[in-house]
Amino acid sequence: MAAREIRVGIIGATGYGGGELVRLLSRHPSARLVGLQSRGRDGVPIAASHPHLASTGLEIGAGLPDDLDAVFLGLPHGVAAELVPELAERGVTIIDLGPDFRLHDPADYPRWYGFSHPRPDLLAGAVYALPELHRDALVALRDASVRIAASPGCYSTAAILALAPLARAGLLDDVVIDAKSGVSGAGREPKPEMQFGEVNESVRAYGVGGHRHLAEMEQELTGVAPAKLDPLDFVPHLIPMTRGILATCHVRPAREVSQAELDELYGDAYSNERFVEVVDSPPATKHVLGSNTFRVHVHHDARGGRVLVLGVLDNLVKGAAGQAVQAFNVLFGLPEATGLEQLPLAP
Amino acid sequence: MAAREIRVGIIGATGYGGGELVRLLSRHPSARLVGLQSRGRDGVPIAASHPHLASTGLEIGAGLPDDLDAVFLGLPHGVAAELVPELAERGVTIIDLGPDFRLHDPADYPRWYGFSHPRPDLLAGAVYALPELHRDALVALRDASVRIAASPGCYSTAAILALAPLARAGLLDDVVIDAKSGVSGAGREPKPEMQFGEVNESVRAYGVGGHRHLAEMEQELTGVAPAKLDPLDFVPHLIPMTRGILATCHVRPAREVSQAELDELYGDAYSNERFVEVVDSPPATKHVLGSNTFRVHVHHDARGGRVLVLGVLDNLVKGAAGQAVQAFNVLFGLPEATGLEQLPLAP
Amino acid sequence: MAAREIRVGIIGATGYGGGELVRLLSRHPSARLVGLQSRGRDGVPIAASHPHLASTGLEIGAGLPDDLDAVFLGLPHGVAAELVPELAERGVTIIDLGPDFRLHDPADYPRWYGFSHPRPDLLAGAVYALPELHRDALVALRDASVRIAASPGCYSTAAILALAPLARAGLLDDVVIDAKSGVSGAGREPKPEMQFGEVNESVRAYGVGGHRHLAEMEQELTGVAPAKLDPLDFVPHLIPMTRGILATCHVRPAREVSQAELDELYGDAYSNERFVEVVDSPPATKHVLGSNTFRVHVHHDARGGRVLVLGVLDNLVKGAAGQAVQAFNVLFGLPEATGLEQLPLAP
Amino acid sequence: MAAREIRVGIIGATGYGGGELVRLLSRHPSARLVGLQSRGRDGVPIAASHPHLASTGLEIGAGLPDDLDAVFLGLPHGVAAELVPELAERGVTIIDLGPDFRLHDPADYPRWYGFSHPRPDLLAGAVYALPELHRDALVALRDASVRIAASPGCYSTAAILALAPLARAGLLDDVVIDAKSGVSGAGREPKPEMQFGEVNESVRAYGVGGHRHLAEMEQELTGVAPAKLDPLDFVPHLIPMTRGILATCHVRPAREVSQAELDELYGDAYSNERFVEVVDSPPATKHVLGSNTFRVHVHHDARGGRVLVLGVLDNLVKGAAGQAVQAFNVLFGLPEATGLEQLPLAP
Repeated sequence: MAAREIRVGIIGATGYGGGELVRLLSRHPSARLVGLQSRGRDGVPIAASHPHLASTGLEIGAGLPDDLDAVFLGLPHGVAAELVPELAERGVTIIDLGPDFRLHDPADYPRWYGFSHPRPDLLAGAVYALPELHRDALVALRDASVRIAASPGCYSTAAILALAPLARAGLLDDVVIDAKSGVSGAGREPKPEMQFGEVNESVRAYGVGGHRHLAEMEQELTGVAPAKLDPLDFVPHLIPMTRGILATCHVRPAREVSQAELDELYGDAYSNERFVEVVDSPPATKHVLGSNTFRVHVHHDARGGRVLVLGVLDNLVKGAAGQAVQAFNVLFGLPEATGLEQLPLAP
Repeated sequence: MAAREIRVGIIGATGYGGGELVRLLSRHPSARLVGLQSRGRDGVPIAASHPHLASTGLEIGAGLPDDLDAVFLGLPHGVAAELVPELAERGVTIIDLGPDFRLHDPADYPRWYGFSHPRPDLLAGAVYALPELHRDALVALRDASVRIAASPGCYSTAAILALAPLARAGLLDDVVIDAKSGVSGAGREPKPEMQFGEVNESVRAYGVGGHRHLAEMEQELTGVAPAKLDPLDFVPHLIPMTRGILATCHVRPAREVSQAELDELYGDAYSNERFVEVVDSPPATKHVLGSNTFRVHVHHDARGGRVLVLGVLDNLVKGAAGQAVQAFNVLFGLPEATGLEQLPLAP
Repeated sequence: MAAREIRVGIIGATGYGGGELVRLLSRHPSARLVGLQSRGRDGVPIAASHPHLASTGLEIGAGLPDDLDAVFLGLPHGVAAELVPELAERGVTIIDLGPDFRLHDPADYPRWYGFSHPRPDLLAGAVYALPELHRDALVALRDASVRIAASPGCYSTAAILALAPLARAGLLDDVVIDAKSGVSGAGREPKPEMQFGEVNESVRAYGVGGHRHLAEMEQELTGVAPAKLDPLDFVPHLIPMTRGILATCHVRPAREVSQAELDELYGDAYSNERFVEVVDSPPATKHVLGSNTFRVHVHHDARGGRVLVLGVLDNLVKGAAGQAVQAFNVLFGLPEATGLEQLPLAP
Repeated sequence: MAAREIRVGIIGATGYGGGELVRLLSRHPSARLVGLQSRGRDGVPIAASHPHLASTGLEIGAGLPDDLDAVFLGLPHGVAAELVPELAERGVTIIDLGPDFRLHDPADYPRWYGFSHPRPDLLAGAVYALPELHRDALVALRDASVRIAASPGCYSTAAILALAPLARAGLLDDVVIDAKSGVSGAGREPKPEMQFGEVNESVRAYGVGGHRHLAEMEQELTGVAPAKLDPLDFVPHLIPMTRGILATCHVRPAREVSQAELDELYGDAYSNERFVEVVDSPPATKHVLGSNTFRVHVHHDARGGRVLVLGVLDNLVKGAAGQAVQAFNVLFGLPEATGLEQLPLAP
């Protein structure tokens, strides 16, 4: 572990993602949390937003100190795009948990997010911080003067990790991604449809017109594929649980494949990945709760010739704060699992 | 309503489906529950198995009376096949909630259920008791000497009703049915994986090798389609709730269709159906809880050209006991909604 | 059943209590729902607030018709007090689901609810509409010129019905009421602490400084007791479910009692009550879900000499809308169970 | 941290408590898991019982190695009593998570557990391993030849820690402990009443005739009180969640007390305790999920003069495996929080 202490701040510390960042970073052996920010909460103890984190003794501060090494951002889309340039240009390493630097094509912002990106020039240099796909780019970022790591969305992480091995092999022909998520991905702002009485004992699809994470999924899967992919069919669902995403990927492969070939593809892709586990039966989200693990199962359906890929993760850890810390570790030359070694919590 | 009282029995009254039958039939204005059976429970009050039904004062009897008009069966597969022939042949109208008379081709039983059907001769005359598809056949059954109505499976009901309008129009080309179910469909026998601690805060796929309800779905959808369908891709999931199924059907249509055409197809198919509601936004299972309603939404995805059909039902009502009572009403010439007029219970 | 149709309105129809009133009254054989009101929702179909009730075809109207026989109110405290007098004085029978007419002593309003009652003169004539305690007063109200029935609170119903037999017998000495409730009792307005992610997998006490339902409980239990009671100790808890209340009442009796005496007390009190079931083992809230039943178990603890009374109900039915319909039936001379005969829904 | 590695085994590794022991001990810096046992599971990978722990690569072994330093036992009552003596006498430090060595009086075993203790001679030397009460005795055990630490029950931990400050001050007069628990405390064996469909959306009391944890509570609270206590009134409830206990303690104090006095009592008792947090508002079980923290709030009710104490813990951590590891740390001279520093997981 690094002898040096890395001075870290969090902007947007009172949301669910912010809470997870505090949980992980306050136990990280090389990071020191020196500043927490959240609009309108100056001077408020962390326990007011995150009662479970009371023992950290932290509080929301009026601003961030000047001598930060890194800052994590958990902000609504459009807000980070305004804030990041100044921070990044004065040398702070940025790990943004929002979408503002994930998409390379500036035209995607008005299309998917409804705003014009204020600094399209920075998009090319930002790295889509999925270490399993872009580890080298994250390493290279260490030497850049402007360092922006755009941490992937929760659904995107699940879908991309589930499908990348097929995409690379040119096997993704026709793809349905049917995802099931706990409610914490919707954030913490009170919404009528997120009240317990509405969510409990119910399931429904949403974002049927086209969920924003589609943009990332198509960018990244096309990025590793031999040719541009057809539009993906992605339908997310809200189910009555708090944490966890299961991405059920129904793939009609471009050519016939065997189970053995699939096993080899996934084994090759992930056998050296600390946070990806290829398993031989359908995984449950409970198997990864609270951990930074993505667990995946691939199955060849002999009846219809399809390939079924089932991937699970904890949306607030591997789908958000944990993955951001993983990227942080790469960016600062630390072992990738530093501060992320907690085992899942079950039952 | 019929002046005459119809004498009804239930075999398998202590399971979840049996409980729902008791709940519905004990308030049915034309039915009289004259016999409840359940192996090894002779003389036990209904309250021992179904505490919520204590006020009915019913108890499990040693056998069924001889002068039954109809009997409902909620039994493990293979058991009804042995029991039904004698009952049916002595003139009792059979409404079987299990799979033993759902499939027309005797070869499907060893293939999907692992047993040879003891009376393949009875399969041809049995009616797949989905009134929305086979109402006329149910009416015709009134005059048959042997009357076996095979009530559809829960997933099958959801998938078939969701897809029948597309099947009829010859539009079903490539179909993925990704279903999400509460746990009550798994029945009442204690299983390690159905303990609360395992199900809560988790989601997983199961039956990945080919769920048995596929056989019914393919039989019935092929039955209404102009040509034999390719194998369906059906993957069920267990989610942390007790009741409800959402079938998310991702369809690549055989030719381009518009939203207007879809709306017309579904409107035509279901505008006269008392228990099917076509809605203009994604439905939640909570919207139909405790009722015999199937609610469906159809959406044309302009990006990829797919059709998304979302159908919800309560697996123990429209997916089991309620649908059986609906068929019973048809079989006995009663208004189809008799005893099924309860509104859903929400939140 | 009454031949005449009773014309009924609901003010506050879009809340959870309002939804239950619509569910029950739209199937009530003697009531006709002729007007639904909800602030700022004129002309909005009921399906917008209550998707499960879409099939009723009802919509929120701009006002109530003039020729109403009865109106149900589901309003925040203080609002009904302003609205009711004019309605009542022009001859409409009022069934108020809020607290504004539950307390006889005007001084209780500033103390417990923080407002001065605008019409203290009406409090004396209003009936606390718990039919099991005040059936005669409800019957007598039929002949009054001003008819205000104040439907009890959810916790109050549970606690009063659980303890009334002991109170009447002069046995209530030292009483702890530890109640557990699903979240629907908190209403429908989005609140941060009622988001699914906060409620799920958690339990907490609230209202520790003194919950408002204490006022009703003490008024009513003192009302049936031979002498004024000491302050009750009432602590409500929020548990991760939607519907249901369990009131666990730990009583140190004023003198030694036996199980046989307790059984007799409760049997005598409730054997003729259609909606109260005395059972011989601890009841679960699931046993009464969706029904108007209150189920109660009384147990003498030989070790410590205490009496434990466990009472369950569905807070939205017997604790709110169902009980209001029960009172309505009494007020209009209908059989008390009219429109309330649905059996509980389980599992 | 200790330089030396402590060789540790677990008997009963496949239950929920066993899983938590593996989770904590496999990340414990001074412990090395050298043997896992579970009846009938020899050679089975840990992933078969605990899929979330697959990455540990552990498996169930045929027996325990001879050179163990310590063994943790998670066994049904009566089984450890047979197994422990031989292990303890050959010098292995025992940390028993079951009840077989918790009670000092041998007569309590037939009374509460229905078996005669085979080795009553060992009960006197066993330490009730609640470090907050018996830290010195655990330290002293290091030098004993037979070392048996009896880890407290989950309810007992909550109730004893909640009430010990009042007991010590002679303030416990009349006590009601109304506890709410998630289902994981009931263990992992499939039981009909623990199926998801039965537990979800329901709450019920159980153990109404006298729960076994009463014996420990009375032993330990009397142990710190100036005089023998009256029988406690303890009623546990099952609520629809997996982990967590809330003990709501309603106390009629022996004399009048003020909030200030209560605050001082609890502050004095727990300000130096690493795993006890005294908080100024009602805590939720979610605030401590997955951690070894007990959080407690004490409130003086001015109306009735009672004292309300609300204590929460995670039944599988501070109520079982975490507390056992805490005792292990004391027994081996390690800092008490070694391996227990994980923060709670929320939402």
